[in-house]
Amino acid sequence: MPSLEKILQSVLETVKPSEQEFRKEMEKAEELIKRIYKLEGKHVKAVLGGSLARSTHLKGDRDIDIFVLFPSHLSRQEFKKEGLRIGKQVFNAGKFEIAFSEHPYVRGIIDGFDIEIVPGFDIKETASLQSSVDRSSFHTAYLQKKLSSAQQDEVRLLKQFLKGIQCYGADLRQASFSGYLTELLILKYGNFLECLKAVAEWKKPTVIDLENYWLEEQALEKFRDFPLIIIDSTDRSRNAAAAVSLQQMARFTAASRTFLKKPSMNFFFPPKTKPLQLKKVSMHVQKEGLIVLEMPYPKGLLADIFWGMIKRLARKLHSALEEKEFKVLRSEAWTDEKSLATITIDLQANALEQAFKRIGPEVFQKQASENFLKAHKKPLSGPRIENGRWIVEELREHYLATEFLKFLLKKLSKEEVKELRFLLKKARVLNQKQILKLYKKSPEFQEHFTRFLKGKEEFLEY
Amino acid sequence: MPSLEKILQSVLETVKPSEQEFRKEMEKAEELIKRIYKLEGKHVKAVLGGSLARSTHLKGDRDIDIFVLFPSHLSRQEFKKEGLRIGKQVFNAGKFEIAFSEHPYVRGIIDGFDIEIVPGFDIKETASLQSSVDRSSFHTAYLQKKLSSAQQDEVRLLKQFLKGIQCYGADLRQASFSGYLTELLILKYGNFLECLKAVAEWKKPTVIDLENYWLEEQALEKFRDFPLIIIDSTDRSRNAAAAVSLQQMARFTAASRTFLKKPSMNFFFPPKTKPLQLKKVSMHVQKEGLIVLEMPYPKGLLADIFWGMIKRLARKLHSALEEKEFKVLRSEAWTDEKSLATITIDLQANALEQAFKRIGPEVFQKQASENFLKAHKKPLSGPRIENGRWIVEELREHYLATEFLKFLLKKLSKEEVKELRFLLKKARVLNQKQILKLYKKSPEFQEHFTRFLKGKEEFLEY
Repeated sequence: MPSLEKILQSVLETVKPSEQEFRKEMEKAEELIKRIYKLEGKHVKAVLGGSLARSTHLKGDRDIDIFVLFPSHLSRQEFKKEGLRIGKQVFNAGKFEIAFSEHPYVRGIIDGFDIEIVPGFDIKETASLQSSVDRSSFHTAYLQKKLSSAQQDEVRLLKQFLKGIQCYGADLRQASFSGYLTELLILKYGNFLECLKAVAEWKKPTVIDLENYWLEEQALEKFRDFPLIIIDSTDRSRNAAAAVSLQQMARFTAASRTFLKKPSMNFFFPPKTKPLQLKKVSMHVQKEGLIVLEMPYPKGLLADIFWGMIKRLARKLHSALEEKEFKVLRSEAWTDEKSLATITIDLQANALEQAFKRIGPEVFQKQASENFLKAHKKPLSGPRIENGRWIVEELREHYLATEFLKFLLKKLSKEEVKELRFLLKKARVLNQKQILKLYKKSPEFQEHFTRFLKGKEEFLEY
Repeated sequence: MPSLEKILQSVLETVKPSEQEFRKEMEKAEELIKRIYKLEGKHVKAVLGGSLARSTHLKGDRDIDIFVLFPSHLSRQEFKKEGLRIGKQVFNAGKFEIAFSEHPYVRGIIDGFDIEIVPGFDIKETASLQSSVDRSSFHTAYLQKKLSSAQQDEVRLLKQFLKGIQCYGADLRQASFSGYLTELLILKYGNFLECLKAVAEWKKPTVIDLENYWLEEQALEKFRDFPLIIIDSTDRSRNAAAAVSLQQMARFTAASRTFLKKPSMNFFFPPKTKPLQLKKVSMHVQKEGLIVLEMPYPKGLLADIFWGMIKRLARKLHSALEEKEFKVLRSEAWTDEKSLATITIDLQANALEQAFKRIGPEVFQKQASENFLKAHKKPLSGPRIENGRWIVEELREHYLATEFLKFLLKKLSKEEVKELRFLLKKARVLNQKQILKLYKKSPEFQEHFTRFLKGKEEFLEY
């Protein structure tokens, strides 16, 4: 087993951009900024943002984020128009696309770099924020002042660790740690190792407040119900960790403990999941209660938005099944982000008893009792009183989960928002044969499905 | 349909003791009291108690309760000794038995009357109560003063109504309305019909406080969590309805509404349950998940005490099944009070999936997490994190309810109190054939089992 020191050194060598690489990126960024200054327009500034500006980016990222700032008195409409115009001009005749965050911006590829030209307002303090995009410059200014160059590398280690254990990224797929959070954590705890030691001892809730804006009780009161509270150093009213789910916070804690006990490169660069053999999968699939729903990936939709959609859909189906008394062990949405999406649901059993107990109103609610007795004249059993409430047993409308899901998909395909309606119409509940066929066809699904069937935190095996 | 008036008149004719009957009972009571006064002993008084003294007893009851009162300075030991001695002397060479309430007393039969000779203390106010038995004289004195002779008949109607809908009796079997409560209700509402009209509108909680001892909020605060609060007119600190379960309170309310809508003699004198045909029972029994446990009735045990025991046992089995994730629809203890007792349990299904989800500690509880991970090295699936907690799926130890019950009975037969141990050793889980055999054999079980299978409040059919 290599020593902890060697592991960290070796990781850093892999993830830190070389001097040459870094210089090239900065040169490209400066060139673009100069070009923007020369353009006619209402903008007053162009500044480099993101992890490149803070020198905390990972090797091969090749992301250049440039903020074009406009005077804050500009109308919203003019701001949008001007912002897009400048962005488009940067790419000249090159390829670009218009993306949407809180407002539209332009992104594209130049000389192999991923360039984003993001319009913003030139403001003096976060209190005057007009959009969360404007926050980025404040983050950059703060970190450039506070983060030592040694700490920049510690941020890189932590980012790669979080990536390895699938806890990196504030997008809807991960609901996890953003780059900015990683930087704040290193500022708080000093370096990567101290950070992991602290995280291994995290409690719920945990409060981190680098600038001491609040007393701990105040922060707990203000950001109640968040498991992790990390006050934004540039904006005391914001929990920078609001997007971090309890799930991801807990996984970070558990992985930190496991790593500290038995350090390994695997945490940073996890081995590829070895797909289960078809025979094994076939055994799992025979288990009554394992359901796979297949949908096509809708062309042209951003992955992040689509992840949000199918995760919401999965939660909806999960709750609907539980409401009908099906016992859901697990459910998980997944997509390969190009042609395929699935929702996998593991049930205690696919079939329920045909009879179910309907719990009516309290006897003391006179009108409701009368209505209930009128509405249930011929139950299988009852009406009777149990614990002061009226009870009847009746036949279930749906007692097979698969059948209920088909019914539900059809129903939702008429009610849901447009994008989902399309998905729901195309969605189908796979039978055993179809699941195996899908498994054979898609290597990405193989990996996902294997992870689901094993149902084990992978870092426990490193 | 006979008019309401005719029904009540006819019920009263049936339940009111005749002049002659009443005179005979009173003569017998006076004779006994005289005899007690003549006996040598430390007693200072002998008084008639119970519903005979209040003239609210039902025809054919033939109960004579006589309280023998001792000076309150007597030692507990001497009181018990003297009380029993007097009691025994009353019966002379006749047959009697020693029964136990809070302290021992003597009861037996003389000339066809059920005689109870109950020792008590001669006290001036309920504040000096030494035993709940002593309360009875205060109740009698209060009711003799307050209850008009017309109201005595209204009490009889109400008692019979409560009997008919199985809501009469403060014993452990019924957990329901005592004679004293019936009397207080008539005092409160004036007569039988007004009482039913009021009960039909009862809410949860309901407070009745004839002597206005408390403000309503005070009573609600003092007797919190009781659905029905009826302040004992002779003791402001006591909820005379403490034994009334929510179940029985609700049933009384529902039956009152049904009766007022469609009055019938059936409420007072319910028709015998017509047992289901064997063929129908056989169909029910084939339903997976219907379990009958059979036990012998232990010789010499008072029915009231035994009811308490098997009801407690049924609740225990019910909870144990639910803890193991079996879904219990209903459970009911029953005995014919002579040779047979059963516990019937209706489950959603007898078999559970063999795998189950074990929910471990929160990840943030470090030591507990370590222990959990150590203890579950080779689960079927997991360990993984769900909502911040460790989860594993494992094989169930017991996945058939019948097998689990057999295991449980064996285990309890070693742990429980002596009387229950005997029962538990003899208890057996019946198979389908055995259930049908029992059904054929016992007419009492036929009635009980039919009611259970129909699972419907009988008064809804009157």
